Amino acid sequence: MQFLPGYLDHAEGSCLVTVGATRVLCAVSLEDRVPDFLVGKGRGWLTAEYAMLPRSTHTRSQRESTRGKVGGRTHEIQRLIGRSLRAVVDLEKLGERTLTVDCDVLQADGGTRTTAINGAYVAVAQAVAKLVDAGLLAETPLREPVAAISVGIVGCDLLVDLAYTEDSRAEVDANFVMTGSGGIVEVQGTAEGRTFERRDLNRMLDAAWDAIAHIHHLQARAIASFAGAKRRTSRPRAKAIASSTRPKRAPARR
Amino acid sequence: MQFLPGYLDHAEGSCLVTVGATRVLCAVSLEDRVPDFLVGKGRGWLTAEYAMLPRSTHTRSQRESTRGKVGGRTHEIQRLIGRSLRAVVDLEKLGERTLTVDCDVLQADGGTRTTAINGAYVAVAQAVAKLVDAGLLAETPLREPVAAISVGIVGCDLLVDLAYTEDSRAEVDANFVMTGSGGIVEVQGTAEGRTFERRDLNRMLDAAWDAIAHIHHLQARAIASFAGAKRRTSRPRAKAIASSTRPKRAPARR
Amino acid sequence: MQFLPGYLDHAEGSCLVTVGATRVLCAVSLEDRVPDFLVGKGRGWLTAEYAMLPRSTHTRSQRESTRGKVGGRTHEIQRLIGRSLRAVVDLEKLGERTLTVDCDVLQADGGTRTTAINGAYVAVAQAVAKLVDAGLLAETPLREPVAAISVGIVGCDLLVDLAYTEDSRAEVDANFVMTGSGGIVEVQGTAEGRTFERRDLNRMLDAAWDAIAHIHHLQARAIASFAGAKRRTSRPRAKAIASSTRPKRAPARR
Amino acid sequence: MQFLPGYLDHAEGSCLVTVGATRVLCAVSLEDRVPDFLVGKGRGWLTAEYAMLPRSTHTRSQRESTRGKVGGRTHEIQRLIGRSLRAVVDLEKLGERTLTVDCDVLQADGGTRTTAINGAYVAVAQAVAKLVDAGLLAETPLREPVAAISVGIVGCDLLVDLAYTEDSRAEVDANFVMTGSGGIVEVQGTAEGRTFERRDLNRMLDAAWDAIAHIHHLQARAIASFAGAKRRTSRPRAKAIASSTRPKRAPARR
Amino acid sequence: MQFLPGYLDHAEGSCLVTVGATRVLCAVSLEDRVPDFLVGKGRGWLTAEYAMLPRSTHTRSQRESTRGKVGGRTHEIQRLIGRSLRAVVDLEKLGERTLTVDCDVLQADGGTRTTAINGAYVAVAQAVAKLVDAGLLAETPLREPVAAISVGIVGCDLLVDLAYTEDSRAEVDANFVMTGSGGIVEVQGTAEGRTFERRDLNRMLDAAWDAIAHIHHLQARAIASFAGAKRRTSRPRAKAIASSTRPKRAPARR
Amino acid sequence: MQFLPGYLDHAEGSCLVTVGATRVLCAVSLEDRVPDFLVGKGRGWLTAEYAMLPRSTHTRSQRESTRGKVGGRTHEIQRLIGRSLRAVVDLEKLGERTLTVDCDVLQADGGTRTTAINGAYVAVAQAVAKLVDAGLLAETPLREPVAAISVGIVGCDLLVDLAYTEDSRAEVDANFVMTGSGGIVEVQGTAEGRTFERRDLNRMLDAAWDAIAHIHHLQARAIASFAGAKRRTSRPRAKAIASSTRPKRAPARR
Repeated sequence: MQFLPGYLDHAEGSCLVTVGATRVLCAVSLEDRVPDFLVGKGRGWLTAEYAMLPRSTHTRSQRESTRGKVGGRTHEIQRLIGRSLRAVVDLEKLGERTLTVDCDVLQADGGTRTTAINGAYVAVAQAVAKLVDAGLLAETPLREPVAAISVGIVGCDLLVDLAYTEDSRAEVDANFVMTGSGGIVEVQGTAEGRTFERRDLNRMLDAAWDAIAHIHHLQARAIASFAGAKRRTSRPRAKAIASSTRPKRAPARR
Repeated sequence: MQFLPGYLDHAEGSCLVTVGATRVLCAVSLEDRVPDFLVGKGRGWLTAEYAMLPRSTHTRSQRESTRGKVGGRTHEIQRLIGRSLRAVVDLEKLGERTLTVDCDVLQADGGTRTTAINGAYVAVAQAVAKLVDAGLLAETPLREPVAAISVGIVGCDLLVDLAYTEDSRAEVDANFVMTGSGGIVEVQGTAEGRTFERRDLNRMLDAAWDAIAHIHHLQARAIASFAGAKRRTSRPRAKAIASSTRPKRAPARR
Repeated sequence: MQFLPGYLDHAEGSCLVTVGATRVLCAVSLEDRVPDFLVGKGRGWLTAEYAMLPRSTHTRSQRESTRGKVGGRTHEIQRLIGRSLRAVVDLEKLGERTLTVDCDVLQADGGTRTTAINGAYVAVAQAVAKLVDAGLLAETPLREPVAAISVGIVGCDLLVDLAYTEDSRAEVDANFVMTGSGGIVEVQGTAEGRTFERRDLNRMLDAAWDAIAHIHHLQARAIASFAGAKRRTSRPRAKAIASSTRPKRAPARR
Repeated sequence: MQFLPGYLDHAEGSCLVTVGATRVLCAVSLEDRVPDFLVGKGRGWLTAEYAMLPRSTHTRSQRESTRGKVGGRTHEIQRLIGRSLRAVVDLEKLGERTLTVDCDVLQADGGTRTTAINGAYVAVAQAVAKLVDAGLLAETPLREPVAAISVGIVGCDLLVDLAYTEDSRAEVDANFVMTGSGGIVEVQGTAEGRTFERRDLNRMLDAAWDAIAHIHHLQARAIASFAGAKRRTSRPRAKAIASSTRPKRAPARR
Repeated sequence: MQFLPGYLDHAEGSCLVTVGATRVLCAVSLEDRVPDFLVGKGRGWLTAEYAMLPRSTHTRSQRESTRGKVGGRTHEIQRLIGRSLRAVVDLEKLGERTLTVDCDVLQADGGTRTTAINGAYVAVAQAVAKLVDAGLLAETPLREPVAAISVGIVGCDLLVDLAYTEDSRAEVDANFVMTGSGGIVEVQGTAEGRTFERRDLNRMLDAAWDAIAHIHHLQARAIASFAGAKRRTSRPRAKAIASSTRPKRAPARR
Repeated sequence: MQFLPGYLDHAEGSCLVTVGATRVLCAVSLEDRVPDFLVGKGRGWLTAEYAMLPRSTHTRSQRESTRGKVGGRTHEIQRLIGRSLRAVVDLEKLGERTLTVDCDVLQADGGTRTTAINGAYVAVAQAVAKLVDAGLLAETPLREPVAAISVGIVGCDLLVDLAYTEDSRAEVDANFVMTGSGGIVEVQGTAEGRTFERRDLNRMLDAAWDAIAHIHHLQARAIASFAGAKRRTSRPRAKAIASSTRPKRAPARR
């Protein structure tokens, strides 16, 4: 898993995140206004959009712009990304501003929604750091980091961070979004064509937390390097922060 | 919670389900064909659609047909309903047939997605019973019942089966879909603006299972009454099956 | 023909109307604003929308929301419903308010557009009664009742209130909308693949008026029962008002 | 009222029809196939589309292509045009062919739907004459002419063939479609904000028939001139056939 | 090439332009407002829309309104028309007004985009002349005329003003838009499946300028006749201004 | 200008091309079928799509998928990219295959359409090389390289390869697409609010050819390095091929 913060020049925050063959470009845009339902309430908002480039996948998909509508899976994922980040952003401290997070999948090999959340946190951190540096915010509205991981059950094995071929074979597929203090933001556990038991859920939660704690560590290094680079240079371009491998996979007997 | 199976005359299966002020009309349509990706595989398919009538809500909403597109929330819910029912239908036993489940909310007061799943199971049971009665299937493809319930945390209280005003105040909102044998089909736990802990998840699971077991009981009575009615009359219109109250709510101190 | 006023809790007015296997749910929403073309003119507006649930018909139809557009037949019907009701509502007495009438067909067996008009009148009566009861209007803006009926010529027979199988066989199909004083609001007579003569039109008008006068009587009883229920109870749920049969059909030799 | 048949070179049939400031271009396209619901039944089909150029009206309207959908009024009119012409075309004699009638309003000053029907009949006559001339049909599938007229009641006056300013003031507006033998194809009588009586309907029918008989005469001359022109020249361009005035208007006391 | 200015009664400016079998109806609408990006800048705007009637072509095309979207070719052409006219309109002299030019192709036989530009200039001239005549503008905002022509290379021949059958055979197809003083507004030269050389471009430019100078002459006569007609009559309908032939075609050996 | 061929793993050909702050990701997808109009003709096809990520620009733009339609500028550019590449691909040698070129702008600072063409050629070269290497094609269908450049006139200066701030100030903006042998594929010269002369066009052509010859050189190096890398390794990832600077800009007095 490699984070490349500041990949874009125009966006207030950005991060190209790579894990295996999956590459997601996260861009954060800041606007000094809020949606109608929040006007005058002194609070900000954060919303997310998600899309896949047509040839991010093994075979080319039709563009959603050409089809003229956004599909159900896309809607579901972008709602998840938005909720996950709102869990760690203090919207009152943000003030009447909107952060729009665009997660565009350049290449997909499983785990695009969790990878998007992981990179989006880094990109949001960059955007709010600029607000603090510019004196527009007294302190950061970020309460703690947030990260996500997928865990699946294939046959009898528990697999962490599913690649595409694993994901399509998984009978139980769960996504966990958790914060630095171990709080749960989102649990989504789904069985397709079978069911699972409470102890399966507990084992998946254990494995998810191990992986998420590791991702929080990588996110922190990416943000630190970026903050450091910023202090040293006028046009910061942080070096890539990578772990030597994917978060440890633990294919263990159930 | 009241189930009124056979509410519609044309549909192969149907059920009007009422809980509090929430009323969902579930209709099952049977077709002797499958989507392209399943042709020739000897298996069936089940898909669901969900919609709200414009004045099902406290204030009128614009029709999705007028807006020209189906919203993200709608997509998310109809995918959930489909997955939940596919978990208990043996698609190979169904043969190359498609069951389309339409869940239309006549009136909404919270819990429409879980109510839809509960009624949809009864409507599907009616449709497959007709296939068995007609000798088109040797045995039912239904493995076991499936039902759903929402559980929320409001302040320090755990609330089961959230009404709208409770739902909008809930800081943690979870939906559970479980089968008659206690297997989990789906767990969706979401915090908005805060997080929750593992013991919260465990307490919500306990409460959910109590409620779901009760719903399975009511579903079984509705199906039995319908089957009985069918034997006695030529144009069956089963009497409503209702519990005297909503599934017991357990507002307990955390 | 059975009227069940007050079927919905949230809507300002509502009526579930049943005739044969046809069931239409009419809901009236009241807003304190008017469309742009009427702003500042001191008059109100009434508009209608019409839709069929996908499995209201013998075989399932695709949702208009999924197709992304509203079909021609739908447009034609909802314009007819709106015009019919505006003929009996004094829009100046209504003041700068908009009544939106939603007619959703739960089950269709012919005559859905005329049934929708008949139920919509009762629902509108409930909504404006609330305005009067609340002291917001000095007197009702309803001038007189309005009702509609279809009449067809099948072979040599004149049929009143066509069921679906009759409707599809009718060579001449006419809809009449008339008020309590016998005024004509709308005459739509259509031949498909043949023509008809003036004396056919006159015979259809005679038959229509007989049926419409009977429907006005049932509408009045439904409204009265509702008004009575309201005086007696805090949460009114009027009992269903039904005629023992469909309006008399007069299959007579031409 | 002026008919200019053969206005277009590519279309199988065409007619530019002018009445007052209203100008409608009717084009008929012939295809050797039928819609799915008619395949293999040995019958043909006729369908119509109607549109207004954006600046046909006093102030410019947005194009329906830009809005991305076809409006309700457009749908209603094109269904009327199609029904009116199908009433006089013997679809079995036409064989498995489809006639598509496009009526595009170049300029509008009231009466566009009736003008479209009047011109469309001439254009269809040209298209089927070509089929007969080419030996593809043994005899014409046209049974008799069809024409349409609007009649309105403004205050106490009866007005035939309403211009725009009259139409917008009319309290009762009726369209009549009738054939050469006096058969009625369609009666649409609508009151906006008031009602009308049976004797009003009868007076409007009388006036309509006078006007329609005159239009049938003009249509016949246009078709004859075209047929004659065809015999004399290789590239026929029939001269315009016009009545010296609009069909006589009879503003009479009621 | 024939210009018929003032073809429409409602539009501020209009021109029906015919060249060979191609006929384009140009209508100019004037509004006293500008798009958002120009509000308060004291300048006007000019925009264009282009469409083809469904049976303008040899075989019928589906309406863009029915397809629900405007195609790529349509967009490209209407942007070209807008740019071409903005090159000769002094938008500051126009003041805060918008001219919308609608070019609707009644019949197409090649060269519709260039024919649209040629007619649109005449229609715009009529619209701005009305503003000057009404004293709303002190002087005309038109700097000089603008016209367009297509030139193609088919085999070894250079062809000016391509008809459809020539256009579809052309290997190099170029459109030139030039003003009265010989200034170039737009050059679009495209090869399909081959390339062309600089001397080809120069030869096409020579031929284009000869044709365009001739069109400017015809445009001037059309505008003059219209201005004259206006002085003499209250309801001007200028006589058609035509050249005896299409602009001279010069099929010369390369 | 930097070419990074093989940036994507799944696509048959790909290239990330960077010039200044502009970054375009080109992906080529190969399918063994052709559009309907080419079936059975023994020829292939090449088509292109173009899109900008929402935050590729200085301020965020709405996604075209959300707006539900593809804009005019997008259509115009993707048609240009397709034509440019078809000029150098021998579609008969390609056989009945379709190459779909997706050009997605990750970041935009002017020149995205020309940059897209330049990168697309490299990506297409990679895709067809795979077909040749796999023995599916006897020889490459690429006849010669193709590249594009923008040239503008700002005030009195001629500028090559316009950055965004230059582009928006340019009064004359031209794009040239030329092949390795100096053949012209496309010339698009546009003036906004003024005109230009023939000698301006000639000077722009001179400057364009200098720049394009240099780009052809860089394209050749990128393709060579990729071909070499392929011979040496099993999973080729060519090193980036860059010129030390943008193509030389020649701001010269006119």
